[in-house]
This record gives sequence, C-alpha cells and structure tokens, in this order.
Amino acid sequence: MSDRIRLGMVGGGRDAFIGAVHRIAARIDDQYELVAGALSSTPEKSVASALDLGISKDRAYGDYKAMAIREARLKDGVEAVSIVTPNHMHAPVAKEFLRRGIHVICDKPLTGTLADAKSLVKAAEKANALFVLTHNYTGYPMIRQARDMVANGDLGDIRLVQVEYPQDWLTVKEEGADNKQANWRTDPAQSGAGGAVGDIGTHAYNIACFVSGLTLDSLSADLDTFVEGRRLDDNVHVMMRFQGGAKGMLWASQVAPGNENALFLRVYGTKGGLEWRQEDPNYLWYTPFGEPKRLLTRGGAGASDAAGRLTRAPGGHPEGYLEGFANIYTEAASAIRAFRDGEAPSADVIYPTIQDGLAGVAFVDACVRSSNRNGAWVNV
Amino acid sequence: MSDRIRLGMVGGGRDAFIGAVHRIAARIDDQYELVAGALSSTPEKSVASALDLGISKDRAYGDYKAMAIREARLKDGVEAVSIVTPNHMHAPVAKEFLRRGIHVICDKPLTGTLADAKSLVKAAEKANALFVLTHNYTGYPMIRQARDMVANGDLGDIRLVQVEYPQDWLTVKEEGADNKQANWRTDPAQSGAGGAVGDIGTHAYNIACFVSGLTLDSLSADLDTFVEGRRLDDNVHVMMRFQGGAKGMLWASQVAPGNENALFLRVYGTKGGLEWRQEDPNYLWYTPFGEPKRLLTRGGAGASDAAGRLTRAPGGHPEGYLEGFANIYTEAASAIRAFRDGEAPSADVIYPTIQDGLAGVAFVDACVRSSNRNGAWVNV
Amino acid sequence: MSDRIRLGMVGGGRDAFIGAVHRIAARIDDQYELVAGALSSTPEKSVASALDLGISKDRAYGDYKAMAIREARLKDGVEAVSIVTPNHMHAPVAKEFLRRGIHVICDKPLTGTLADAKSLVKAAEKANALFVLTHNYTGYPMIRQARDMVANGDLGDIRLVQVEYPQDWLTVKEEGADNKQANWRTDPAQSGAGGAVGDIGTHAYNIACFVSGLTLDSLSADLDTFVEGRRLDDNVHVMMRFQGGAKGMLWASQVAPGNENALFLRVYGTKGGLEWRQEDPNYLWYTPFGEPKRLLTRGGAGASDAAGRLTRAPGGHPEGYLEGFANIYTEAASAIRAFRDGEAPSADVIYPTIQDGLAGVAFVDACVRSSNRNGAWVNV
Amino acid sequence: MSDRIRLGMVGGGRDAFIGAVHRIAARIDDQYELVAGALSSTPEKSVASALDLGISKDRAYGDYKAMAIREARLKDGVEAVSIVTPNHMHAPVAKEFLRRGIHVICDKPLTGTLADAKSLVKAAEKANALFVLTHNYTGYPMIRQARDMVANGDLGDIRLVQVEYPQDWLTVKEEGADNKQANWRTDPAQSGAGGAVGDIGTHAYNIACFVSGLTLDSLSADLDTFVEGRRLDDNVHVMMRFQGGAKGMLWASQVAPGNENALFLRVYGTKGGLEWRQEDPNYLWYTPFGEPKRLLTRGGAGASDAAGRLTRAPGGHPEGYLEGFANIYTEAASAIRAFRDGEAPSADVIYPTIQDGLAGVAFVDACVRSSNRNGAWVNV
Repeated sequence: MSDRIRLGMVGGGRDAFIGAVHRIAARIDDQYELVAGALSSTPEKSVASALDLGISKDRAYGDYKAMAIREARLKDGVEAVSIVTPNHMHAPVAKEFLRRGIHVICDKPLTGTLADAKSLVKAAEKANALFVLTHNYTGYPMIRQARDMVANGDLGDIRLVQVEYPQDWLTVKEEGADNKQANWRTDPAQSGAGGAVGDIGTHAYNIACFVSGLTLDSLSADLDTFVEGRRLDDNVHVMMRFQGGAKGMLWASQVAPGNENALFLRVYGTKGGLEWRQEDPNYLWYTPFGEPKRLLTRGGAGASDAAGRLTRAPGGHPEGYLEGFANIYTEAASAIRAFRDGEAPSADVIYPTIQDGLAGVAFVDACVRSSNRNGAWVNV
Repeated sequence: MSDRIRLGMVGGGRDAFIGAVHRIAARIDDQYELVAGALSSTPEKSVASALDLGISKDRAYGDYKAMAIREARLKDGVEAVSIVTPNHMHAPVAKEFLRRGIHVICDKPLTGTLADAKSLVKAAEKANALFVLTHNYTGYPMIRQARDMVANGDLGDIRLVQVEYPQDWLTVKEEGADNKQANWRTDPAQSGAGGAVGDIGTHAYNIACFVSGLTLDSLSADLDTFVEGRRLDDNVHVMMRFQGGAKGMLWASQVAPGNENALFLRVYGTKGGLEWRQEDPNYLWYTPFGEPKRLLTRGGAGASDAAGRLTRAPGGHPEGYLEGFANIYTEAASAIRAFRDGEAPSADVIYPTIQDGLAGVAFVDACVRSSNRNGAWVNV
Repeated sequence: MSDRIRLGMVGGGRDAFIGAVHRIAARIDDQYELVAGALSSTPEKSVASALDLGISKDRAYGDYKAMAIREARLKDGVEAVSIVTPNHMHAPVAKEFLRRGIHVICDKPLTGTLADAKSLVKAAEKANALFVLTHNYTGYPMIRQARDMVANGDLGDIRLVQVEYPQDWLTVKEEGADNKQANWRTDPAQSGAGGAVGDIGTHAYNIACFVSGLTLDSLSADLDTFVEGRRLDDNVHVMMRFQGGAKGMLWASQVAPGNENALFLRVYGTKGGLEWRQEDPNYLWYTPFGEPKRLLTRGGAGASDAAGRLTRAPGGHPEGYLEGFANIYTEAASAIRAFRDGEAPSADVIYPTIQDGLAGVAFVDACVRSSNRNGAWVNV
Repeated sequence: MSDRIRLGMVGGGRDAFIGAVHRIAARIDDQYELVAGALSSTPEKSVASALDLGISKDRAYGDYKAMAIREARLKDGVEAVSIVTPNHMHAPVAKEFLRRGIHVICDKPLTGTLADAKSLVKAAEKANALFVLTHNYTGYPMIRQARDMVANGDLGDIRLVQVEYPQDWLTVKEEGADNKQANWRTDPAQSGAGGAVGDIGTHAYNIACFVSGLTLDSLSADLDTFVEGRRLDDNVHVMMRFQGGAKGMLWASQVAPGNENALFLRVYGTKGGLEWRQEDPNYLWYTPFGEPKRLLTRGGAGASDAAGRLTRAPGGHPEGYLEGFANIYTEAASAIRAFRDGEAPSADVIYPTIQDGLAGVAFVDACVRSSNRNGAWVNV
C-alpha cells in the first residue's frame, strides 16, 4: 500500500501487552505505517522501545507531548496516533494530539473518571480530528451480522439482553509483584473507579448495546472484591433496564476459574434470539422462535454482507481476535481517508466513537454509585 | 422385585405431562408398583385414567380423599403416594395422606403460597411418614458429584454461583386456549404467586444451593411479564447474597427463543470451578485454577462414587432426565424401606425434603416481595 | 398396564451388564412383565439371580432348555424371551424358543459365526414367532428422524456414509483376569470371528445402513490386534462401496483413549448432510447444501413425527441410551400384540429383524475375509 | 522492524485468494516487506496488481522470469519470493529464483506431478537458498504442542492416526464458469493428478505425519468423482499403514455438505490420545488413558512452550488461520536470518521443507496408483 496512513503510538513499549496487539491490528490490512512513538513514561525505555520496532531515531520520543508538538510540525508527521497507556493517561495524551488535528485511536475504557471522560469529549468535539475507541469486539464480523439482524427486525422487539465476561486471571492476588498488567489494572489511580467493571464490564456493556441497539435507562449493581487486599472490584453483577422495556443482566468477573476471555452475549426478542461467544467468534447462533436453531458461520452460507465486509479468509478458516481488532483499524482508516477528502465515510463504515467511550465510563460510574447505595437503581 | 413398594398417585391423568414422567421414574429401578390412583379432579376422568394404566377398578378412585381414607384401611393399601397435581393442591392432598401415615412423594414447587408451605411443613413434622419432593435435577449423577466435590473442598471457598434456567415455550401467548400446561402454569390461583420464578426459578435455586452447599441470605429481584395479558411473570432476574459472602445471579425465563430446558449451573471458588448443563447432563466441567479444564463424564474415568451410586449404563451411554428422576424415586425407596425397619437410611441416600420445598416457596415469595419494592434487597 | 406381555430372560444374571439394561428397557413403557428366567449357564447362579429379581421360585430355571419346554406348556407361559447371553449361545437358545412359538428378543450380534446365523434364519423363518434383534441404536428418536429425512429425499442422492465407533476400554489387556465382559468379548469361542468388528463394528454398520437406506456391495478391511496376546481384533478400518455408487468408511476401535461409546454417523447426499452422535443423541445436525447448519433436537421445533413417536420427555429434557433401548422393546411389543391378533403391525412400527442380524454377521465375515486377503475387496 | 526481509511474490494478483493470505501472513509479525511482484500470467494484469499493492512501478513485473533476472542483479533485490500460482507453475518459477540464490516460500502442493517434484528437489538441493513450503496448518500453536506431546511420549507408542478434511464447496459443479478457484483446482493440467486428494488430502496427510512423527509405509485408496463431468477426484478414502505398525485412515472430500474446512486430526497411542480441529484451532483435547479428558487451550494453563513460541494473544483471545499462516512466514524469517549469518536456525524453528512437499506429491501419486489398481496396497 503506497498510501499508508502515518501512525504514531503512545504507550505500548517493552513488556506491554496491548501495544503489540494494536501494532499487529494496524498492519494486517496494510493501511498504516508506524513512524513515531513515545512508548513509555520512562524516557529511556520509550526511546529504546521505539528503536526495537524500527522507528527511526529522530521519531523515537521520550515523552508524548514532545512527540505531539514535533510531529504536528513535520511535513510528513503522523496523521493518527494510537494511545495504549493505562486509562488515566488517555485524556491528557489524547488532548495533546486532538488539539493539533491528529486523529486519535484510543484504547478503552475511555478514561478512569467520568470527569475526565466529559472533558475529553469536549476536547474531541472542538478538534479537527477523529476519535476512534478500540472497543475491538465490535470488529468481529459475526457481531456486525448480529447487529444487522437486530436492526433488520429478525428478532422482533428485543426483550432480553444477557451478557457476561468472566475471566480467571485475578483469582489469586497477582498484583503487588512484577505482574505489570495486574498492578495497574487494580490500581484506582491508573484504572479509575472500576476494576473488573472498568476493564471488562465496559466491553460487555458496549457489545450488548452495540448489537441490541438499545439504550440503557437504569441499573442495579453489586460490586465485590473477593481477593483480600485488592483495591478495586474483581466481580460485578448488574441488573439492567433499557429504554423501551427490555431487561438484562451483566456479569463480569476476574475470579471465575476456567474462564479466559469468555465474553458471551445473548439477545432475545419476540421473534427469535442470537447467541455469540468471543472465544468462538466465527459462529453465531440464530434461534428463530418455533424453528430449528441455526449456526451461522463467518464466510458460510448464512453470513450477511455486514459480516462479509470484514472477512478475509473463507468460511472454516477461522479469524480471531487480531482480525477483529484489525477491523477497527481498517474502519478507522476508511474514516480518516474520507476525512482527508472532506467527506463522510461510507455508511457501512462503523467504529466505536468517543460517545461510546463516554457511555462506558458512565456505566462504570453508575455501577459504583449503585453498589455504594446497596444496589439501588440509578440512571446511567 | 418381589418386594415393590405399593404406590398410589394423585393427579397425572390423561393429557397430563408430569404424571407419566413420575410413573416411568418409579418403574425404572423396579422399586414400586402402582396400585391405586385418583388421577384427575374430574371423577370420571380420574377413574378412566386409572383403568388406562391397568389399575384395578376398585382402586381407581374418583377423588383423592376417598382414596386416602380407603387405602389407609386396606391391608395392602398404598405405602406411598405421588402427588402430581397443580401446585395449589399439593398441600391439601399431601395432608390427607400424611395424617394417615402414607409417605408422600410430591412434585415441586411445594405449594403455591408460603402460608400453605408452612402449614404443610407442620403437618409433615407431625406425621409418621416421609415427605419427598421431586426436585428431580438433584438426581442427576454429575450433580451429585458436583455437590461432593464442593463439600470435599475441591473448589476451595465458594465465591460465585451463577445459575440460569431459560426456556422459550411461553414466548407467545399459549394460555387461554387448550394448552393445559400453559393454562395452569400462568394462573395465580393454581400456580401461586410465581410464574417462571415458581416453575423453573425454584429448580435453579434448588440446584444452586444443593451443589454449592450455601444458604441464601438475601436477594434483589426484577420480575417481568413480557407477554401481554399474561397474569404471572415470564422472566425473572435475581442477584443473590449468600451467607458467608458468596454472591450469585439467577435468571429464569420462559421467553428466550432457542432455549428448551437450558438449566445451567456454574460454581466458582478460590481453587476451581464447576459447570453443568441439564441438557447435557452426563458431562461436568471441572476447572481447577491454573490447570487445564477437565471434562468429567458419568461412568468415565473421573466419575466419583457419588455419581456411580446412581449410574446404570456405562460411560458414553447417556442417561437422561428420566433416569435422574428415577434416582429420586429410588432414593425415596431406600428411605421408605429404612423407615419400615425403623432405621435411618444409609448416609449416602439423599432426596429433597419438605424443607427444601419450603425454601423454594420462600424464594418465590422473596422474589415477588423484592420486585414489588423495586428490587430492594430482602431476606429469604 | 393390565395387559403386559409375559417375558422370560436367558442370560443376564448376577454381574452381567446387558441383562440389566434389557430389563430396564422392558420396564420403561410398562409393556412387559418379567416372569421367568434362566439367567446363567451355572444352574445355581441362574436360580439365585432369578430370585434376586423377584421371579417366582417355580419359574427360576437352572437351564434355558428346561425353561423353554416348561414355559411352552404353561397356560400363562412366557410369550417372549430376551436372550442376553454371549454371542455363541444366541442360536441354540433362540431355536429352542422359536420352535415352541415363543417370540425372541435377542441381543446383537446375531451369532458368532455366519453358519450359525444362516441356520438361525432358517429356524426363524419356519417358526410361528417373531424375532427381534436389539440393535438398540436404531431406537433413538433422532436416528428415526434421520432415516426418514433420507427416505424423504431431503439429502438428495446419497454419496457418502462415514461411520465410526471408537471406545477405549480395551486399550490395555483387561482379559485374562476377572473382567467378565473383557473375557468373553475377546474369546473367539464365545464372540465369534470378530472382536471390535463384531461387538461395535456391527452397530456402526447397522446404523449406517438403517439411516442411509443403502445396501453394501463390497468392502475392503484392515483388522488389527494392537494389544499383545489378545485373540481377536481390537481395531478395524473398512472402506465401503454401496450399491448405486455411494462410498463410505467405517472405523471401530476399542483402543482409542478418551472414547467411551463414541458412535458417530455422517451421511452426505447431493442436497445436504446429517450428523449424529450416540453420546449426544438428542441432537441431529442437518446441513442443507448452501444454507446454514441446523441443529434439530428431539422434542424441539424441527423434530419429525418419526422422532415424536418414540419420545417421552419434552425437548431439552434429554432421553438417553435406556430410552432408545426401550423403544426397541416397545416396538417389539406392538408387533407382538399385532401378531396375537393375527395382524401386521402398523407401518410405522420398526425394529431390527433377523435379516439385519444376518447382515451384521455377514459384515463381520466379509471384514475378516478381506483382512485375511490383505484388504482385497470382497462382496458382503 | 528496520530490518525487514525484502520479499517478492509470483502469482496472487487481482481475484486470487491465496496471494492475499500470504501477504497478510508476511505482514503480521513485520518480518517482511513486499517490494516486487509478477502477480499474474497476464502481463498487464500482473503490473496493475502490483501497483494496487503499492509496489513501485519499476518492480512491477510482467513475468516471473524477468523478475528473477532483474531482482537477482539489484543491490536491494528481493531476498525471498512467495510463489502462489497454480500448482503446475511451482516448479518452473521456483527454479528461476532458487538458481539465483533467492529463497523460495512456496504454496502447496509442491507440484502437480511427481516428476516435477523430484526435479524441483534436485534444483533445491543444488541451490544456495532455502525452500519453505506453506503447509500452513503446521503453524498452529496447538499443532506444535501436539507434535511435542507425541515426541515427548505423552501418548506412548502411537497406534492410530485418524485424519479427515471434508469441505462442501464442490458439491455441485462450480467449474466451467467464472469460479477461478474451481476452474484451476479441477483442471489436471494446472492441479496435477489429484483433485481433492491434492488440494486438501495433502494437508491432511502432512498434518498427520507432522504430529504423529510417523512415516507412511503403504496405503490403499479409493478415489471418486461424484460430480458428473468433473475431471479430477472430489472425494478420497485412504487406509494407511505406517512404519512400525501404526494404522490410520484419511478422508478428504469436497462434496460433504455442511463442512467448510473441517480438517480434524486424532492420534491415539498406548497411553493417551489427542484431538484437534482446524476450525477451532485454539483447543487441543488431551485424553490420557484412564484419566479425565483435558481441554488444552492456546495461551491457557496447559499450553506448552512449543505453543507459546507462536502465540501473540493471551488465552481466550482466539488466533486463527492467518496467524497460523504467519507463523510459517515468521519461522521462515528466522531461518533466512540465520542463513544470512551462515548459521543454522535455532533448533525450535520448524517449517515445512521441500521434502515434506515431495512426500505430499508422492502421497497423491500413491493414492492415484492404488485407486487405479482397485485399492491395492502400494508403497509411498
């Protein structure tokens, strides 16, 4: 691709997990070229990490602000930046780039606090740049198809949304030693008010709304910290009431042994249901009421155009997490190219926006408020 | 078996579903002989139904009270009676037999109202007879194994109990016409205060407590009636707090298209988890933390003694719903035989008791109370 | 059921496995009453086993011939006899009863040798009695549905039949000690010429033909005995050519660790396919070409009349091996009742016949012949 | 990566499927830079396709020979070339590059004919360059783990290898119109002597040998062409005898409705078994004899170092077909880098070699020979 989008990255240096995922995602469809980075909050590590990745020395920055300032001035400076820092840094970093007209592709959740989220929304609204949130699960082809099927009325009126995201990696106390992931994700200063609810509850909430097309009205939540000494919740139970009368449940946990990333979504309406599991993402169960269950497969006979748009390999050749992530990057690339041309992207280009990010942080905030009030129903 | 227990039945005549299930369950291990019946509230139908089943004419009763009186006087009268009527009749029927020293094997839920349940408990306590509740899912071998594994500490301290029982048969309005099942199960006068929560929520609650060994402290419930004109709930969402700090969620629904009898239980502790599905009952997933998941099979290499006691066919030759139900009858037979001999049954004989039945009705009552108070936490 | 069929049993005494299965199968639908037995080749054990089962003393026989002679003379003698001995005894026992007009319900394979099978067929043809072979897997409701779907042309012209039956219980040498099952099943004198091919290969072959409706033309087989010192094959590979041009493969093994009774059948035609697993017998995959896969469930929305006829519990309440076995007994009961009345049974009554049994023994014979000729194609 | 390997590509222009897959695979780990191409046998299309991909005009070649000649002379010419043409062109193309010391990464099967394969092997042996065959399924992490477990003796002595690769895309006649894939894959001139056996049978055979570590001694095959007018087989059944006494079966089909790319491998030994499905590649069943089945997951608790080497995303975040393919490219990159340095690659670097390719073509040849001789056992 001669016409790759010039990309920078903040965060994601040596030892980081999610930065490498973003880089692969950006590469898969060859839409981006990584040319600059401020990959760590430690300047030396930041520079060294950039050199590891083949970024040229003059664009291996020691801190993100310097990067924003200089890249904005370069003739061939970055057009977009990926932000893959801990949550509390999303807002300050994003603002530096947005105000300079550099598009932002930011990891989720949007911020650690609701105040930060609102402030960032304002900054984004004023900016002459796009903001893309990597709620990556929305990039799975069968999730796109599910969303389309709901929108097309295949399920009738939606009554129920059951969503869960259990993990087990924090079943015992991992934090406090050298597990970098565990350390920042259980630290309120870096993660914000939500532990499990922030890290994975927001994913579950996002995907539930994305597919069902519903808007949450109010919720009742019960947050728990099962592991002694942990500073944030590691399990959350939520009952949900959507506008229009649908109901739902959400469960997110980091202490459920045997679960890796078992995000599982079920949506039921008057005419049928859908079931989808993130760990087996190429399958979508469609259960029209009164008819046999059907197993739709990515690339298979029942796959829709919405799924086909985001599909690279034929049916039976599974795509996975990285391809779903790549789809977000590729949708973003389409939007950025349209932006360049002063046009709106094609109607079928979809990516999670800063409003989705705000909704996620508001969800965390509502869960914490409800739980603090013994599960009282609170508006989101 | 020369020494079959003489059994009567109340309810379960022509067109009834659960009566036939009880009769098969009673036959499978050849522990009972059905010799008397009052199988319908309509006397002619009652008698005709009994004759259909080969019950002799003189023991084909037109009403249950006449049956109780006469059978108690017969030298070879029934030793036990199965009660398979709609819920509101359980208490009056059971009392007639219990007061005459005839053992009762009663379908669930125990009664339609909490007052009836308490009154029946008193009657049972005074009676010189056993009371067995057919919470049949406790008869599945892998459920017995799961219970044993929890009790043995294989899961460590229990933190989470996630249980659900979705169905789809009431997705549209079935009641009001000739669907007998739908009619009485959505009729408060016959079913009591709970619709889905009473019919299947009690099963989910029972199995959750049976396996986890936990006692529910309080709950927050959201009941819904999605189908217009329906008189009882057809969906219930519950958050649960157990004594000792474990938490849980329960979902029961009759309006989730694609679900037949999808009872699904998951229990997670500090050391591992268990997952079991009623529709695939010969499998039990055991997930010790930090080790590969193991699939235990009834009759297979990982099956415990608790499972083996209740197993007839070798591993890979599936047993199902009727065999699980039969296990309740066979456990009851062991208890009845011990009772005859004035002894306690062997320690491994387990069956659901009237206290389990009371707990189920109290659960329904608490769900209704909580839901009426907008999901306030209420004690059970 | 006032009108139960009087049943005797030969074989199936203390410690036997399959006898108990037959007795449960006969009881489930209450069509039979077990009134006589010669349950072991050891007279004392035979009598004691009968008394265990509540058979009256005068009908607890020490040997099968005495039983046949006396029962035939009794006014209320047995109308049918179940034969559950090792294979080599099927023919001599069956002949004694058939010649006296007593219906025979016989375990599979029909006999140990092809000569015995042919001789028994002749005896059955002359007899004034029915012969039912318990190829029990044909009793599964979804197998009936599969057969109907093929017959109805839902799959188009059949091209491929892939069938397998792996087990693992003979992975190590079990015979030679006190494993009674292992001893007789690996003994050519009792089992005949086939080990795995006779015990489970015949099941696989039977179900393949039953569902596909095809007739085998020729086969090429490779038999192996992997466990040292074993006297019969413990693994068989077969390529199959059916009349009309369809092809297939059959694999049966007793040395495949992790497999319990993993009978798996797949049939593919010009218009679609079917897949069924014995260990999950309530499910049938239907794969119409060019459409999404459909999961049909016993008792569910896609279940046909052929499945419904043999169904006791609603969808989602699994039936299993014993119910499938019971269906054979119940079909046999229908046939016996029709025979009593001098009528043909209803057209939808289906049970495996002595011709199916002969076909199974001929299949074993052909496999052995082919394998002995280095896999040459031989006619069946 | 500043140090990317300069890559060219032959074949894979507009409308081609596998070329795009190779390009993504080459990009995922950022080890290659695509700088030259002769992407079609039609010069104009070849050049246009290269420009589409951002290849500079002077390296967008009209034919592969011109490309080989010029690139070999360039200071920064390609170090490696991916060959993704139809099978019959693999040998002539590869030879042009090999003789000039350019590494070859070639799609499978190696060639259309055994003669071509042998000739290519000779060319490769003389060349100062590496030859990598993209038998991509060997790149799946759990396949690496399976291979290691067999090699480590976890399964004991291997007795059985059951492998199958059913598809359904050629159930009806697709060739003869504008389905480019169908056209060349059913054309003996482009594909060689094997249809299904060449396209997917070779994959099944390769993976069976790769994991089991066994060498095939002889086989008996039955090839069929079910679709009228098709010029190559669309179904193959094979019985296999391995050196050392293990046995196996292989089935490959393009006419099995409901199957997409259902490659399924099972290996059983004296101590345990393994089962793996390409469509769910993150799971590996391990069945130690006499113990519960274990489900090993990529990135999970039971994953070995061999799997971990090739893993990018954590457990529960599925990797798929493209990542498996990328692993071949990344292993090749390691080998190429070692070659540059005059060293052998690290011992854990594994990729399919030209000998594997020769074995695959010999397998096809043996299947055809056997089938032509009515399934006679032939040596491979």
